[in-house]
Amino acid sequence: MFAEIITIGDEILIGQIIDTNSAWIAQQLNHIGIRVHQITSISDKREHIEEAVETALSRADLVITTGGLGPTRDDITKRTLADYFGMPLVMNNDVLKHVESLFATRDTPMPEVNRYQALVPEGSEVIYNHNGTAPGMWFPVKGNKVLVSMPGVPYEMKGLVSDTLIEKWRAHFNTPSVKHRTILTQGVGESNLMGMIDKWEDSLKDYDIKLAYLPSPGVVRLRLSVSGENEELIETRLNQKVAELKQLIPELIFGYGTETMEEVVGNTLLEANSTMASAESCTGGYLAHLITRIPGSSRYYKGSVVAYDDQVKVKQLGVFESHLQHYGAVSEEVVRQMAEGVRQQLGTDFGVATSGIAGPDGGTNEKPVGTVWMAVSGPNGTITQKGNFGNHRERNIRKATLTVLNMLRKEILRGS
Amino acid sequence: MFAEIITIGDEILIGQIIDTNSAWIAQQLNHIGIRVHQITSISDKREHIEEAVETALSRADLVITTGGLGPTRDDITKRTLADYFGMPLVMNNDVLKHVESLFATRDTPMPEVNRYQALVPEGSEVIYNHNGTAPGMWFPVKGNKVLVSMPGVPYEMKGLVSDTLIEKWRAHFNTPSVKHRTILTQGVGESNLMGMIDKWEDSLKDYDIKLAYLPSPGVVRLRLSVSGENEELIETRLNQKVAELKQLIPELIFGYGTETMEEVVGNTLLEANSTMASAESCTGGYLAHLITRIPGSSRYYKGSVVAYDDQVKVKQLGVFESHLQHYGAVSEEVVRQMAEGVRQQLGTDFGVATSGIAGPDGGTNEKPVGTVWMAVSGPNGTITQKGNFGNHRERNIRKATLTVLNMLRKEILRGS
Repeated sequence: MFAEIITIGDEILIGQIIDTNSAWIAQQLNHIGIRVHQITSISDKREHIEEAVETALSRADLVITTGGLGPTRDDITKRTLADYFGMPLVMNNDVLKHVESLFATRDTPMPEVNRYQALVPEGSEVIYNHNGTAPGMWFPVKGNKVLVSMPGVPYEMKGLVSDTLIEKWRAHFNTPSVKHRTILTQGVGESNLMGMIDKWEDSLKDYDIKLAYLPSPGVVRLRLSVSGENEELIETRLNQKVAELKQLIPELIFGYGTETMEEVVGNTLLEANSTMASAESCTGGYLAHLITRIPGSSRYYKGSVVAYDDQVKVKQLGVFESHLQHYGAVSEEVVRQMAEGVRQQLGTDFGVATSGIAGPDGGTNEKPVGTVWMAVSGPNGTITQKGNFGNHRERNIRKATLTVLNMLRKEILRGS
Repeated sequence: MFAEIITIGDEILIGQIIDTNSAWIAQQLNHIGIRVHQITSISDKREHIEEAVETALSRADLVITTGGLGPTRDDITKRTLADYFGMPLVMNNDVLKHVESLFATRDTPMPEVNRYQALVPEGSEVIYNHNGTAPGMWFPVKGNKVLVSMPGVPYEMKGLVSDTLIEKWRAHFNTPSVKHRTILTQGVGESNLMGMIDKWEDSLKDYDIKLAYLPSPGVVRLRLSVSGENEELIETRLNQKVAELKQLIPELIFGYGTETMEEVVGNTLLEANSTMASAESCTGGYLAHLITRIPGSSRYYKGSVVAYDDQVKVKQLGVFESHLQHYGAVSEEVVRQMAEGVRQQLGTDFGVATSGIAGPDGGTNEKPVGTVWMAVSGPNGTITQKGNFGNHRERNIRKATLTVLNMLRKEILRGS
C-alpha cells in the first residue's frame, strides 16, 4: 500500500518556500500504515502536472497533490485534473455558499473570480475546506486507486486531512490499524539512553512493536509503533510497554506525544498552584521566551532577569562581588545565588538560573565552551547541576534551557 | 538550462525530517541563472535511485542528488551511481588522508568502515568536503550533462556548493552572470511599501532588473535580480537603483543581503561604542534571545528585565503603581518608564521596552489583541511608538521585537 505526494507550484522550485506539507502528510499516512514511495515537486505547468500524475498513478494506490487551487490564472491544478480525468467543471452550490459565507464576514464584497472556486469536476467528491475557499477533491481512479487534490496553504491542507481524509483513507484502503506512542526524554543522549533501555527494547519484539529514536538538541523522543487487527489488544500492549519504560527511567521521562517541555512545566506549575521566575546568563532570555510564547503563561510566570553583565548579577540578583571574583560567573556558587536571588526579588515559589560559556569563544582549559551551571531554588532548598553541552552556541543555549526546566519540573513534583 | 534535484533517504519519506536542502540549492542555482524543473524525494533503494536518475537525466542538463553517502549499509547512493555509470570504485588517497585526519583530532580510533568513504567511482571527479567524510562527486554525462552527488547533511552540502560547485557549474554551463541585491526593510507591510516605491519599481524595467517582494513577519525583503554579459555594467546599474531606493525610503531600510536586524543593531552599537539593555513585557525575553544568540553580544548587551508581572515592572524598573492603575500596563506612560528604568538600573546608553497584548486572549475594544507600546530611551531622550500587529501571538512577539530594535537603530544613528 503505497502513496505518492505531488506538490505543485513554482515557489518551491525557486526555493522561495520550503515544502513542509509533504513531511506532515507523510507522517499522517504512516500513522495509518500507508507508506510514501515518492515526493515530487513540480511547476504550475499543464504538461508537467499531467506527466507527474500519470507516472505516480502507475506506481501508487493513492496520489495526493497539493497546491495550484487558488482563484488566479497561474493556479491550474483543478482545470488540468478535470481535463485529465475527462470530467467537466460544474458549479457546486454547497461550495459556492461556503465561499460566499467566508466573504460575508469581511467588509469587502466577494471578487467575481472567487465564484470559480465553487466549480468542481463532475464525478469527483468534494472534501469540505473549513479554512479557505478551495475545496479538496477526491478522484476515484480505476483499480480502486484514488487521487486527492488539496490546497497548498498548510493550515487548510491540515484541516482537510485531520477532519476528513485520514478516516476516509483508512476506510477506503482498509489499512490495518497502526498505533503510536511517543515518549519524551531529557537528560541523557541517544547512545547512553540506548544502553539504559536495551533489554526493554529487546522485549518489544515479542509484540512486534517497533522503536524509533528521534533525537534533537536536549531531548530524545522514543516512538513506539505497532500495527494489527485487534485495536484493543494493541492499545493494551503499548500501554504495558510504556508503563515498563516509565519504571525503568522515571527521571528521564518528562512528557508524551507532541507536548513540549515548556508546556509540561507550565501545566505542572498550574497543578501545583505555583509560580516561577528565571535568572539567565548564558541562555540570554531564551528560557523566558519559551515559557512566554505559551498563551496564558502569565498565570505562573512572573519574569526574568537576563543578567548578561556581571554587574547585573550583583545589583539585580544579589550575587556577591566576592563570589564572582573567587569562583567566576560560571560556577555553582554564582548560579545558586542567581536562582535564590530572582526567587526572592520577584517573590515566586521557584527560581531557576543558568550561567555558562555558550561559545564559540570564551572557553578555558578548566571551563571549556559548553560548560553550564544550572540551579533551581524552591521551597525545599536549592539544587544545582553542571552540564558540558559541546561547541555549538545555539545548541548550548537550548540544551541548558531544557535541562534546567526539567530540573524545575522534578523539583515541583518532589515538593508537592 | 534546467536542473533537477533528487533527495535520497527514507527519513524524508516517513516525514521524520523536512527537506530544507532542496530549497537552498534551488536558490543558489537561481542566482546563477539555472532553473530547477523538478525536485524528487525517493527511498534508499537501488532500483528507485536508478529510475529517478534515468528520468531526470532525460529531461535536465544538471542533476543533483543529495543523501545516501554515509558509511553504513543502508547508504547505497555511491555504489548505485558507480554501477549505473559503469565506473569501478577505486581508493582515492587524498580523500583517505582527509578522512583519517578528521578522526585524528578525536580521541577514538577510526572505525574501519570509514575507509569505504575514500572509495570513489573511477572517472568521476572528487569535490572536496571540508566538513565531513563523504566527498562530493561530479559525473560527466554525454551531451555535456552533469550529475553531482552530495551528502545530505545540510552544512556539508552547503560547504560543497558554496566553496566549489557554484563556480564550477557557472563555468561548465557558461550561464550568463546573474547579480542580485537584497534590501531589508522594516516598518510598513508589503502592500503599503508597493505604493511608496511604485515609480521606482517602474523604472527598473529600463535596465531589465526584476524585483521580488519577500515578506515575513515584521520585515519585507526586496530582491533585485538582473542577468547579462557585462558584469561591470550590471553592477553599476544595480548600485544606482539601490542608491535611488535608499533616497526614497531611508527610514525603512535597515540592512542588506543576509544580515539580520539583531546583527545590524549589534554592529551599530559597536560602531557607536554604546551599550543597551531591555525591559520586556509582551515580548517575554524574545528580544534578549535574538540579541544574545549572536556571538560576542556581551560587548554591547548588559541584560534584560522580563517584567511579565506588573509588580516586576514596579519593583525592578521603577514604574509608578499609579501609572499602572491609571493608564494600564499597555500604555505609553508605562512603556516609557520601563525603557528609562532599565537604562538607569543597568547603567547602559540605551534602554528599550515593550508592553502589549500578544494574544490570543486579553484584548479589549480599546486595546485589541496586537496592541503593543514600544519605547527607546537614550542620550537624546525617550521616544515611543504604538503598533497594531494583529491576532497571531508569535507574530506579535516578533513584529514588536523587530520594530523596537529598528527604533533603537535609528536612535543610535541620530545620536552619533
